[in-house]
Amino acid sequence: MAAPVSGLDADTSAPVIILVRPQLAQNIGKVARAMANFGLSELRLVAPRDGWPNPPAYPAASGADWILNDAKVYPTTAEAVADLNAVYATTARPREMIKTVETPRHAGQSMRDHGLAGRRVGVLFGAEAAGLTNDELVKAETIITVPCSPDFTSLNIAQAVLLVAYEWFQAADHTPGKQLASGDARLATQDEVEGFLLHLEEELTLSGFLRPPEKAPHMKRNIRSIFQRLELLDQDVRTLRGIIKSLVLFGRSAGKMKH
Amino acid sequence: MAAPVSGLDADTSAPVIILVRPQLAQNIGKVARAMANFGLSELRLVAPRDGWPNPPAYPAASGADWILNDAKVYPTTAEAVADLNAVYATTARPREMIKTVETPRHAGQSMRDHGLAGRRVGVLFGAEAAGLTNDELVKAETIITVPCSPDFTSLNIAQAVLLVAYEWFQAADHTPGKQLASGDARLATQDEVEGFLLHLEEELTLSGFLRPPEKAPHMKRNIRSIFQRLELLDQDVRTLRGIIKSLVLFGRSAGKMKH
Repeated sequence: MAAPVSGLDADTSAPVIILVRPQLAQNIGKVARAMANFGLSELRLVAPRDGWPNPPAYPAASGADWILNDAKVYPTTAEAVADLNAVYATTARPREMIKTVETPRHAGQSMRDHGLAGRRVGVLFGAEAAGLTNDELVKAETIITVPCSPDFTSLNIAQAVLLVAYEWFQAADHTPGKQLASGDARLATQDEVEGFLLHLEEELTLSGFLRPPEKAPHMKRNIRSIFQRLELLDQDVRTLRGIIKSLVLFGRSAGKMKH
Repeated sequence: MAAPVSGLDADTSAPVIILVRPQLAQNIGKVARAMANFGLSELRLVAPRDGWPNPPAYPAASGADWILNDAKVYPTTAEAVADLNAVYATTARPREMIKTVETPRHAGQSMRDHGLAGRRVGVLFGAEAAGLTNDELVKAETIITVPCSPDFTSLNIAQAVLLVAYEWFQAADHTPGKQLASGDARLATQDEVEGFLLHLEEELTLSGFLRPPEKAPHMKRNIRSIFQRLELLDQDVRTLRGIIKSLVLFGRSAGKMKH
């Protein structure tokens, strides 16, 4: 077992994950892995069935050992949430209880907002089969329910933690939804694209492709629409101009050979 | 093993999940479970290490057997994507390749858009350790990369499928981000809330709580701010008025007993 890493540098604005009566050590390990993926570090265990620490949790954590090393055990859910300002609980089953219900996406943002306001946040996850009791659900101000296929609603505990942690992380992530990963290359300028298109049109006029002349404008528009749909990089423009040159030269040399 | 369910009624606008050289049958089962959670049904396997069908996949699927029963096996990735119009690939590792990179959230929407346009969409997921080769990544127009903690980027194959399927489902889901689950109860009207507040103020005037009189307006505002922060239901208003009545009556009867 690795030496415990101190939790002192942990992000206290991040939600605490609280597993209530967890059963399989492997699932506890997978929860730790999912937490590490999305920057969470504080894990609390309420009355774990097989005690704690529990060595089989480690291989399932795939290296997120520091979370398992720092996990704290509580005898009751009440004690596990005593120091928290805001408590969420995950459940798929609506009970006869009046509760605010949030999607994981909304909860990701509302947990961030609590953290920014300096409040400590925790999320309760029930045991594998039994879930949370009504008495435990009452301790939470907010229920998180994952919208999913009505035909197949069973999410395991590690999947539920993964989705909540994912949404918490995404709420503060600024990765562009869509971007062109182009290494050192940059998007071509309009001038460079236009230079290529004029080069192509010139060679296609010479080669006789743009005939009859009255159809040439329409054909040119079609050709332009192919290349202008692309986000051409500077290096793409150089490559395309090289291709034109090469095809023209090959055609000329082939022509010479024929004669 | 359950009788195969026909895939004929499957939603063909949903993305096909393609596992390239998957290793553990258990992971294939977990992928099927994650697909079922979010309404996906078509699974393709490229050169599964241990052959197919592979019985240990079934317990891990937690009942999503129809997806495993209908899974198709292909010798190469090229054959597995041949009939698709749009191919995505998931990878954490940026390669020396110029590619459009989308977040799972953006891809959830863009896959929906393809589906609405009648295009068949597939998503490639690499093997547990090896991932996808550059030749396989080239087959995809779009890379999906999950934004996650830079300290811990390893996502297993079932987690990656879960997040992609989750975002595809959410892109068309209309669950309110936050709602009050209140069963048959309804939100109180302003009239009902005002009736309760006037009732409370009247009793507190009689009881002497709102003294001295020059402080009464400020005290009333504080009291109103407590209850107006809540989304009171009609039944909450009845409960609160019952509480006031009960406390007043108790006080009176205790007073009578004293004299």
